[in-house]
Amino acid sequence: MAVDGEEDDLLLPLRRLEISDNAKGFVELLSQLSPATSPLSDADFLARFADLAALGDDHLIVVAEDQRSGRIVATGSVFLEPKFLRGGSKVGHIEDVVVDAAVRGQHLGQRVVRYLADHAKAAGCYKVILDCTPDLRSFYEKCGFTEKNIQMALYF
Amino acid sequence: MAVDGEEDDLLLPLRRLEISDNAKGFVELLSQLSPATSPLSDADFLARFADLAALGDDHLIVVAEDQRSGRIVATGSVFLEPKFLRGGSKVGHIEDVVVDAAVRGQHLGQRVVRYLADHAKAAGCYKVILDCTPDLRSFYEKCGFTEKNIQMALYF
Repeated sequence: MAVDGEEDDLLLPLRRLEISDNAKGFVELLSQLSPATSPLSDADFLARFADLAALGDDHLIVVAEDQRSGRIVATGSVFLEPKFLRGGSKVGHIEDVVVDAAVRGQHLGQRVVRYLADHAKAAGCYKVILDCTPDLRSFYEKCGFTEKNIQMALYF
Repeated sequence: MAVDGEEDDLLLPLRRLEISDNAKGFVELLSQLSPATSPLSDADFLARFADLAALGDDHLIVVAEDQRSGRIVATGSVFLEPKFLRGGSKVGHIEDVVVDAAVRGQHLGQRVVRYLADHAKAAGCYKVILDCTPDLRSFYEKCGFTEKNIQMALYF
Protein backbone atom coordinates (compact mmCIF):
# COMPACT_ATOMS: atom_id res chain seq x y z
CA MET A 1 0.00 0.00 0.00
CA ALA A 2 2.87 2.36 0.80
CA VAL A 3 4.54 1.33 -2.44
CA ASP A 4 1.33 2.04 -4.40
CA GLY A 5 1.14 5.46 -2.79
CA GLU A 6 4.70 6.27 -3.72
CA GLU A 7 4.07 5.15 -7.30
CA ASP A 8 1.03 7.45 -7.51
CA ASP A 9 3.06 10.35 -6.20
CA LEU A 10 5.58 9.81 -8.99
CA LEU A 11 3.13 9.23 -11.83
CA LEU A 12 0.53 11.75 -10.67
CA PRO A 13 2.40 14.45 -8.75
CA LEU A 14 0.46 17.38 -7.31
CA ARG A 15 1.49 20.96 -7.99
CA ARG A 16 -0.06 24.41 -8.31
CA LEU A 17 -1.95 25.35 -11.47
CA GLU A 18 0.22 26.90 -14.18
CA ILE A 19 -0.72 28.99 -17.20
CA SER A 20 0.33 26.19 -19.55
CA ASP A 21 -2.35 23.92 -18.01
CA ASN A 22 -4.99 25.45 -20.28
CA ALA A 23 -3.46 23.39 -23.08
CA LYS A 24 -3.33 20.29 -20.87
CA GLY A 25 -7.07 19.90 -20.42
CA PHE A 26 -7.60 21.74 -17.12
CA VAL A 27 -10.88 23.41 -18.10
CA GLU A 28 -12.04 20.25 -19.90
CA LEU A 29 -11.56 18.40 -16.61
CA LEU A 30 -13.72 20.98 -14.80
CA SER A 31 -16.51 20.27 -17.29
CA GLN A 32 -16.80 16.80 -15.69
CA LEU A 33 -17.96 18.72 -12.62
CA SER A 34 -20.14 21.35 -14.25
CA PRO A 35 -21.47 20.53 -17.73
CA ALA A 36 -22.16 24.24 -18.41
CA THR A 37 -18.38 24.75 -18.51
CA SER A 38 -16.90 25.61 -21.91
CA PRO A 39 -13.27 25.92 -23.03
CA LEU A 40 -11.58 29.28 -22.38
CA SER A 41 -9.43 31.10 -24.92
CA ASP A 42 -5.83 31.59 -23.84
CA ALA A 43 -6.59 35.29 -23.25
CA ASP A 44 -9.63 34.56 -21.05
CA PHE A 45 -7.74 31.86 -19.17
CA LEU A 46 -4.85 34.22 -18.58
CA ALA A 47 -7.15 36.99 -17.32
CA ARG A 48 -8.82 34.66 -14.81
CA PHE A 49 -5.44 33.21 -13.81
CA ALA A 50 -4.19 36.74 -13.09
CA ASP A 51 -7.31 37.57 -11.01
CA LEU A 52 -6.64 34.56 -8.83
CA ALA A 53 -2.86 34.99 -8.69
CA ALA A 54 -3.47 38.47 -7.28
CA LEU A 55 -4.96 36.79 -4.20
CA GLY A 56 -1.59 35.22 -3.40
CA ASP A 57 -1.71 32.38 -0.90
CA ASP A 58 -5.35 33.20 -0.14
CA HIS A 59 -6.30 31.26 -3.26
CA LEU A 60 -4.70 28.05 -4.43
CA ILE A 61 -5.55 25.65 -7.23
CA VAL A 62 -3.82 22.29 -7.15
CA VAL A 63 -3.59 19.96 -10.14
CA ALA A 64 -2.29 16.47 -10.82
CA GLU A 65 -0.57 16.05 -14.18
CA ASP A 66 -0.39 12.52 -15.47
CA GLN A 67 3.27 12.06 -16.33
CA ARG A 68 2.40 9.48 -18.98
CA SER A 69 -0.13 11.55 -20.95
CA GLY A 70 0.81 15.12 -19.97
CA ARG A 71 -2.87 15.74 -19.16
CA ILE A 72 -4.37 17.29 -16.02
CA VAL A 73 -6.36 14.51 -14.38
CA ALA A 74 -7.33 15.97 -11.00
CA THR A 75 -7.81 19.37 -9.44
CA GLY A 76 -9.24 21.21 -6.48
CA SER A 77 -9.11 24.74 -5.11
CA VAL A 78 -9.21 26.47 -1.77
CA PHE A 79 -9.68 30.12 -0.97
CA LEU A 80 -9.06 31.59 2.42
CA GLU A 81 -11.64 34.02 3.71
CA PRO A 82 -10.41 36.55 6.29
CA LYS A 83 -12.98 37.02 9.07
CA PHE A 84 -13.64 39.40 11.92
CA LEU A 85 -14.91 36.40 13.88
CA ARG A 86 -12.75 34.49 16.35
CA GLY A 87 -10.16 37.19 16.81
CA GLY A 88 -9.75 37.84 13.09
CA SER A 89 -9.27 34.25 11.94
CA LYS A 90 -9.63 32.71 8.48
CA VAL A 91 -11.79 29.96 7.01
CA GLY A 92 -10.72 27.85 4.05
CA HIS A 93 -13.35 27.11 1.41
CA ILE A 94 -12.64 24.06 -0.73
CA GLU A 95 -14.18 24.21 -4.21
CA ASP A 96 -14.17 22.39 -7.52
CA VAL A 97 -12.58 19.08 -6.57
CA VAL A 98 -12.66 16.73 -9.53
CA VAL A 99 -10.79 13.60 -10.55
CA ASP A 100 -10.86 12.42 -14.17
CA ALA A 101 -13.26 9.49 -14.48
CA ALA A 102 -10.44 7.46 -16.08
CA VAL A 103 -8.17 7.58 -12.99
CA ARG A 104 -10.66 7.27 -10.13
CA GLY A 105 -10.16 4.67 -7.42
CA GLN A 106 -6.48 5.53 -6.84
CA HIS A 107 -7.00 7.84 -3.83
CA LEU A 108 -6.09 10.83 -5.98
CA GLY A 109 -9.14 12.76 -4.69
CA GLN A 110 -8.03 12.22 -1.10
CA ARG A 111 -4.53 13.47 -1.94
CA VAL A 112 -6.02 16.61 -3.53
CA VAL A 113 -8.25 17.32 -0.53
CA ARG A 114 -5.39 16.73 1.91
CA TYR A 115 -3.15 19.11 -0.07
CA LEU A 116 -5.81 21.85 0.11
CA ALA A 117 -6.59 21.29 3.78
CA ASP A 118 -2.87 21.31 4.66
CA HIS A 119 -2.49 24.65 2.87
CA ALA A 120 -5.43 26.16 4.78
CA LYS A 121 -4.13 24.87 8.10
CA ALA A 122 -0.60 26.17 7.48
CA ALA A 123 -2.06 29.58 6.56
CA GLY A 124 -3.82 29.87 9.92
CA CYS A 125 -7.40 28.81 9.11
CA TYR A 126 -9.33 27.37 12.03
CA LYS A 127 -11.35 25.11 9.69
CA VAL A 128 -11.97 24.21 6.07
CA ILE A 129 -15.48 23.73 4.72
CA LEU A 130 -17.02 22.57 1.47
CA ASP A 131 -20.38 21.77 -0.06
CA CYS A 132 -21.12 18.48 -1.80
CA THR A 133 -23.92 16.19 -2.83
CA PRO A 134 -24.93 13.64 -0.18
CA ASP A 135 -23.40 10.77 -2.19
CA LEU A 136 -19.95 12.27 -1.53
CA ARG A 137 -20.44 12.32 2.27
CA SER A 138 -18.53 9.09 2.82
CA PHE A 139 -15.65 10.21 0.58
CA TYR A 140 -15.21 13.39 2.61
CA GLU A 141 -15.60 11.49 5.86
CA LYS A 142 -12.61 9.41 4.76
CA CYS A 143 -10.78 12.74 4.35
CA GLY A 144 -11.58 13.61 7.99
CA PHE A 145 -14.60 15.85 7.43
CA THR A 146 -17.93 15.64 9.24
CA GLU A 147 -21.34 16.75 8.04
CA LYS A 148 -22.16 20.09 9.59
CA ASN A 149 -24.93 22.10 7.92
CA ILE A 150 -27.05 22.46 4.82
CA GLN A 151 -26.21 24.47 1.72
CA MET A 152 -28.79 26.86 0.25
CA ALA A 153 -28.47 28.37 -3.23
CA LEU A 154 -30.07 31.16 -5.21
CA TYR A 155 -29.55 31.04 -8.99
CA PHE A 156 -29.79 34.25 -11.03
CA MET B 1 -46.78 46.97 5.02
CA ALA B 2 -45.14 49.33 2.58
CA VAL B 3 -45.18 52.02 5.26
CA ASP B 4 -43.57 49.67 7.78
CA GLY B 5 -40.87 48.86 5.24
CA GLU B 6 -40.14 52.51 4.62
CA GLU B 7 -39.92 53.18 8.35
CA ASP B 8 -37.41 50.34 8.75
CA ASP B 9 -35.33 51.72 5.91
CA LEU B 10 -35.15 55.08 7.69
CA LEU B 11 -34.51 53.80 11.20
CA LEU B 12 -32.25 50.89 10.20
CA PRO B 13 -30.59 51.88 6.95
CA LEU B 14 -28.14 49.47 5.30
CA ARG B 15 -24.68 50.57 4.27
CA ARG B 16 -21.18 49.15 3.87
CA LEU B 17 -19.03 48.49 6.92
CA GLU B 18 -16.88 51.45 7.98
CA ILE B 19 -13.80 51.57 10.20
CA SER B 20 -15.73 53.48 12.88
CA ASP B 21 -18.08 50.50 13.26
CA ASN B 22 -15.61 48.78 15.57
CA ALA B 23 -16.76 51.28 18.23
CA LYS B 24 -20.42 50.68 17.37
CA GLY B 25 -20.56 47.04 18.38
CA PHE B 26 -19.90 45.33 15.05
CA VAL B 27 -17.67 42.56 16.43
CA GLU B 28 -19.88 42.21 19.51
CA LEU B 29 -22.78 41.54 17.15
CA LEU B 30 -20.77 38.80 15.41
CA SER B 31 -20.30 37.11 18.76
CA GLN B 32 -24.05 36.35 18.72
CA LEU B 33 -23.21 34.13 15.74
CA SER B 34 -19.97 32.60 16.99
CA PRO B 35 -19.41 32.60 20.75
CA ALA B 36 -15.65 32.10 20.25
CA THR B 37 -15.51 35.66 18.90
CA SER B 38 -13.72 38.21 21.02
CA PRO B 39 -13.40 41.99 20.67
CA LEU B 40 -10.66 43.26 18.34
CA SER B 41 -8.31 46.10 19.16
CA ASP B 42 -8.58 49.08 16.82
CA ALA B 43 -5.25 48.05 15.25
CA ASP B 44 -6.37 44.46 14.62
CA PHE B 45 -9.72 45.64 13.32
CA LEU B 46 -8.01 48.06 10.95
CA ALA B 47 -5.63 45.39 9.68
CA ARG B 48 -8.48 43.00 8.89
CA PHE B 49 -10.52 45.84 7.39
CA ALA B 50 -7.60 46.65 5.07
CA ASP B 51 -7.22 42.98 4.03
CA LEU B 52 -10.85 42.92 2.97
CA ALA B 53 -10.89 46.38 1.39
CA ALA B 54 -8.04 45.23 -0.86
CA LEU B 55 -10.51 42.77 -2.42
CA GLY B 56 -12.59 45.70 -3.73
CA ASP B 57 -16.10 44.75 -4.86
CA ASP B 58 -15.21 41.06 -4.55
CA HIS B 59 -15.86 41.35 -0.81
CA LEU B 60 -18.62 43.34 0.79
CA ILE B 61 -19.82 43.61 4.37
CA VAL B 62 -23.16 45.30 4.90
CA VAL B 63 -24.34 46.64 8.24
CA ALA B 64 -27.52 48.19 9.62
CA GLU B 65 -26.92 50.99 12.10
CA ASP B 66 -29.81 51.72 14.41
CA GLN B 67 -30.33 55.47 14.07
CA ARG B 68 -31.75 55.66 17.61
CA SER B 69 -28.88 53.93 19.43
CA GLY B 70 -25.97 54.38 17.01
CA ARG B 71 -25.29 50.64 17.34
CA ILE B 72 -24.74 48.08 14.57
CA VAL B 73 -27.71 45.72 14.81
CA ALA B 74 -27.40 43.57 11.69
CA THR B 75 -24.70 42.48 9.29
CA GLY B 76 -23.85 40.04 6.54
CA SER B 77 -21.03 39.56 4.06
CA VAL B 78 -20.55 38.23 0.57
CA PHE B 79 -17.36 37.41 -1.23
CA LEU B 80 -17.21 36.73 -4.92
CA GLU B 81 -15.12 33.80 -6.03
CA PRO B 82 -13.76 33.96 -9.58
CA LYS B 83 -14.01 30.56 -11.31
CA PHE B 84 -12.69 28.89 -14.41
CA LEU B 85 -16.04 27.08 -14.62
CA ARG B 86 -18.87 28.28 -16.85
CA GLY B 87 -16.76 30.46 -19.10
CA GLY B 88 -14.95 32.13 -16.22
CA SER B 89 -17.96 33.09 -14.10
CA LYS B 90 -18.18 34.02 -10.43
CA VAL B 91 -20.01 32.59 -7.42
CA GLY B 92 -21.09 34.70 -4.46
CA HIS B 93 -20.60 33.22 -1.00
CA ILE B 94 -22.80 34.73 1.70
CA GLU B 95 -21.32 34.51 5.20
CA ASP B 96 -21.88 35.77 8.73
CA VAL B 97 -25.47 36.99 8.53
CA VAL B 98 -26.65 38.04 11.97
CA VAL B 99 -29.42 40.23 13.32
CA ASP B 100 -29.26 41.49 16.91
CA ALA B 101 -31.68 39.45 19.03
CA ALA B 102 -33.32 42.72 20.18
CA VAL B 103 -34.48 43.71 16.68
CA ARG B 104 -35.49 40.39 15.15
CA GLY B 105 -38.91 39.97 13.52
CA GLN B 106 -38.66 43.16 11.46
CA HIS B 107 -37.48 41.55 8.22
CA LEU B 108 -34.04 43.07 8.71
CA GLY B 109 -32.39 39.71 7.95
CA GLN B 110 -34.22 39.49 4.63
CA ARG B 111 -33.11 43.01 3.73
CA VAL B 112 -29.48 42.11 4.52
CA VAL B 113 -29.61 38.94 2.41
CA ARG B 114 -31.29 40.76 -0.48
CA TYR B 115 -28.61 43.49 -0.36
CA LEU B 116 -25.85 40.86 -0.57
CA ALA B 117 -27.56 38.85 -3.33
CA ASP B 118 -28.20 42.01 -5.36
CA HIS B 119 -24.53 42.91 -5.11
CA ALA B 120 -23.46 39.45 -6.29
CA LYS B 121 -25.93 39.51 -9.18
CA ALA B 122 -24.86 42.99 -10.31
CA ALA B 123 -21.22 41.86 -10.21
CA GLY B 124 -21.92 39.01 -12.63
CA CYS B 125 -22.26 35.99 -10.33
CA TYR B 126 -24.41 33.19 -11.71
CA LYS B 127 -25.51 32.20 -8.19
CA VAL B 128 -25.05 32.92 -4.50
CA ILE B 129 -24.68 30.13 -1.96
CA LEU B 130 -24.51 29.89 1.80
CA ASP B 131 -24.38 27.32 4.58
CA CYS B 132 -26.78 27.33 7.52
CA THR B 133 -28.29 25.14 10.18
CA PRO B 134 -31.47 23.31 9.13
CA ASP B 135 -33.62 25.54 11.37
CA LEU B 136 -32.80 28.50 9.08
CA ARG B 137 -33.99 26.68 5.94
CA SER B 138 -37.41 28.37 5.94
CA PHE B 139 -35.88 31.82 6.51
CA TYR B 140 -33.65 31.43 3.46
CA GLU B 141 -36.49 29.95 1.43
CA LYS B 142 -38.37 33.21 2.10
CA CYS B 143 -35.29 34.96 0.66
CA GLY B 144 -35.67 32.90 -2.54
CA PHE B 145 -33.07 30.21 -1.81
CA THR B 146 -33.53 26.47 -2.18
CA GLU B 147 -31.74 23.69 -0.35
CA LYS B 148 -29.07 22.26 -2.62
CA ASN B 149 -26.34 20.22 -0.94
CA ILE B 150 -24.73 19.33 2.35
CA GLN B 151 -21.87 21.15 4.06
CA MET B 152 -18.88 19.21 5.36
CA ALA B 153 -16.31 20.70 7.75
CA LEU B 154 -12.86 19.84 9.03
CA TYR B 155 -11.73 21.66 12.18
CA PHE B 156 -8.03 22.09 12.90
